[in-house]
Amino acid sequence: MAECIFCRIVEGKIPCARIYEDDEALAFLDIGPLAPGHILLIPKRHFERIWEVPSELLVTLVRKLPRLSRALLEATGAQGLNILQNNGPVSGQAVSHLHLHLIPRTAGDGLGYRWNAGRYGPGEIESVQKRILGAMGED
Amino acid sequence: MAECIFCRIVEGKIPCARIYEDDEALAFLDIGPLAPGHILLIPKRHFERIWEVPSELLVTLVRKLPRLSRALLEATGAQGLNILQNNGPVSGQAVSHLHLHLIPRTAGDGLGYRWNAGRYGPGEIESVQKRILGAMGED
Repeated sequence: MAECIFCRIVEGKIPCARIYEDDEALAFLDIGPLAPGHILLIPKRHFERIWEVPSELLVTLVRKLPRLSRALLEATGAQGLNILQNNGPVSGQAVSHLHLHLIPRTAGDGLGYRWNAGRYGPGEIESVQKRILGAMGED
Repeated sequence: MAECIFCRIVEGKIPCARIYEDDEALAFLDIGPLAPGHILLIPKRHFERIWEVPSELLVTLVRKLPRLSRALLEATGAQGLNILQNNGPVSGQAVSHLHLHLIPRTAGDGLGYRWNAGRYGPGEIESVQKRILGAMGED
């Protein structure tokens, strides 16, 4: 898409600090990093959300994750890693071209997901389960 | 592993609200949900971190993501979705059996990643890029 910043990076019209590239995927450093070495891994084809993507395109992306993760930890000395994929403006997705964040983590970095865990009331988990199974066509 | 709670769920020794199961993967509702419908997707085999997992095992997991995501949004009415995979105690990984969180998002839910973005100083992004490429054996 002409107006998509990630499509323009794929086309070479905007430069990037490239980490990995093949026919279907590109990984590069986020220029607004949450931590040094914060990587974005994207498909070259434009898709917005994970529920719109062919499974096989996701497969080509995740095949790179173990190797990219190992190199990222070795290069940065980080002790942990968050892999995050946001879908929709309400989720924090800032660029509507599907992307995975690889965020190296170190103790006391102040990052991470806001973990405000709740609880289900009596019967509630079964009700939610039934609705999801129904939506999958398996209730 | 005998002491791993997710292995015990896989073995049926601890019950779960199952959403999906095949020979290699299991998806079930998190009993401490960040939002109703919060799903955990795990491999049945025990691996701790993404950098230790065979790529092909990740592939079997992510093939389920588009369909699970669609059903989850339809069932909950959420407008967005975070997919999160934590590695290492410092990252927020509470159970050391590899798992993906599917977290439905709605406006004003107070969830999401702490987005404290920084900037690279002059020459810094190239230096980080070089170190990561070196760790991948490609500098």
